[in-house]
Amino acid sequence: MNKMKLCILGFGAVGQGLAKVILMKHDELIERYGLDLIITAISDSSGAAINNDGLDAQKALDVKDETGKISEYPEYGIKGIDGIEVLQKADYDCLVEVTPTNIEDGEPTQSNILKAMNDKKDVVTSNKGPLALNFKELIQTAQKNGVKFRFEASVGGTMPVINLGREALAGNKIHSVQGILNGTTNYILSRMANEGTEYEPTLKEAQELGIAETNPYQDVEGLDAACKIVIIANSLMGWDVTLDDVSLHGISDISSNAIKLAQEDGYLIKLVAEAKDGKLTVAPMLVKEGSPFAVNGTLNVITLKTDLSEDVTVVGVGAGSIETASAILSDIISIGKRNSE
Amino acid sequence: MNKMKLCILGFGAVGQGLAKVILMKHDELIERYGLDLIITAISDSSGAAINNDGLDAQKALDVKDETGKISEYPEYGIKGIDGIEVLQKADYDCLVEVTPTNIEDGEPTQSNILKAMNDKKDVVTSNKGPLALNFKELIQTAQKNGVKFRFEASVGGTMPVINLGREALAGNKIHSVQGILNGTTNYILSRMANEGTEYEPTLKEAQELGIAETNPYQDVEGLDAACKIVIIANSLMGWDVTLDDVSLHGISDISSNAIKLAQEDGYLIKLVAEAKDGKLTVAPMLVKEGSPFAVNGTLNVITLKTDLSEDVTVVGVGAGSIETASAILSDIISIGKRNSE
Repeated sequence: MNKMKLCILGFGAVGQGLAKVILMKHDELIERYGLDLIITAISDSSGAAINNDGLDAQKALDVKDETGKISEYPEYGIKGIDGIEVLQKADYDCLVEVTPTNIEDGEPTQSNILKAMNDKKDVVTSNKGPLALNFKELIQTAQKNGVKFRFEASVGGTMPVINLGREALAGNKIHSVQGILNGTTNYILSRMANEGTEYEPTLKEAQELGIAETNPYQDVEGLDAACKIVIIANSLMGWDVTLDDVSLHGISDISSNAIKLAQEDGYLIKLVAEAKDGKLTVAPMLVKEGSPFAVNGTLNVITLKTDLSEDVTVVGVGAGSIETASAILSDIISIGKRNSE
Repeated sequence: MNKMKLCILGFGAVGQGLAKVILMKHDELIERYGLDLIITAISDSSGAAINNDGLDAQKALDVKDETGKISEYPEYGIKGIDGIEVLQKADYDCLVEVTPTNIEDGEPTQSNILKAMNDKKDVVTSNKGPLALNFKELIQTAQKNGVKFRFEASVGGTMPVINLGREALAGNKIHSVQGILNGTTNYILSRMANEGTEYEPTLKEAQELGIAETNPYQDVEGLDAACKIVIIANSLMGWDVTLDDVSLHGISDISSNAIKLAQEDGYLIKLVAEAKDGKLTVAPMLVKEGSPFAVNGTLNVITLKTDLSEDVTVVGVGAGSIETASAILSDIISIGKRNSE
């Protein structure tokens, strides 16, 4: 049996999703992989709960649900403590960093991840910020310390593209990558195409449904997709790029008329992210109806063009807290399995 | 550096594809994974070539090309030796079993694989026969001996579904699987749909193009797809089934008229393999145009329905010697990496 102690920094939708998934799967993981997951610390903006013998995930979810603050966790709650302090106090094997994404300077995620790595801890994150801004330092720090670093959940929710490229297609060179990597914009463009509506009211509707965020800037201007293509290019293609290297064009100036004209020729307009010939692009592009890229709604799709395996395409749900937590769990299992082999 | 000695049994399209891929990638694999692949033995129906210091892959390909017989390999060729004898003589870490598929009794592949496992060697195979007939014994023998056993190439060419389900979606329960798993039948049905031709002449044309085999029985009657869905159900869903458990219906009685009627309603007819509710089926089914299953030509597609990640779909090229060799190479790398970790 391999006991693996987790420190979860961030207890929003993804962190809570992970706690739920661990509750749901705890016994199954012992049975299938001999992997006993124990949550020893959880933090949010109010502070943290730390118990090196293990927190009760259900109690943590209940406390968060009732009070909004993990620091209200009975007996083990600590108010006002920050991520670095939690990492100092907690006994853990693997940091799960799921604090909100910051694409300005990647903090506090970046400092949290670097500290954990330098303390010889494995790290799993869903956080695009530091990966899109500072990939190289993170990878080198992980290598220097001999720790594992996984970030499947940072790219495209349940579409397991990083592990696909790294494990299942190991031995292939990936020449280029093209994908629809943002569910919100794909939802908006799909609705505009299917119902002939204009951009502004469609965005509003998506916000009312909780599909678009109140501040939709990062999604609709293509920044979210840009972060993801940067992470893919760095991790699967060996590039050394950051968010600044992406040529960026969002969807806010797409008219229903442009979509209609495209449809008359058998095309759809999609926000496509591309890493090809040394260049990174996120821009609205024409996609043939009936092609794998004509996916509707919040689906994501990505095609890897390889040297040995030709094109391999994956389609999956782009977002959702359980879906993202599932990608994190796969990373945790992968680390746990290797450490026990 | 991790030296890994390979014994390749079978030197047809897949075995030769693997030799080519290893030639192409040898130095890159050392650089990327610290993995030095050395081929110590290659067999075909004429005999084998064995050199425990390493054969020259280019020379092996040339000899095979010129004489049709690997046993003509200068100095190290041995005539008339069979697989089991090769395994006795050769020094190797990993057996690559790529002899022709036999879905009657799985031999000689099955005996070769079992001997290697009992000799504590890892095994990679592309051979569906023993996996579809006798999965449990193979898995149990691998476990008993503590060796690794991989078979990505046995299912759907470059569509990395086994590793996707086992690694990238680890932690998910796979409820059901549906796929187009045979490229030949998909090619025939696509041509019939696109050109309004009948089954017999379309099959003939596919045979002339080398897409369908001279004896197309296993493809067109659904046996090939049936083997694959059995392997998927056993390995990803924990079922304990064999080829006999598949309800089977091929494509030879599909008329161009039936396809035309389906098209009028916006559907295509595809040979779909399914593992669902405890039942295995391979049969022509209606697939909506514009859905991920409406793939054309020799493409394969598979959808895994999971508990945490909803539907994950992969599309890839179904066949081809380099493509299949690429799947084998990924398995070899995965074993090599783990053994060195």
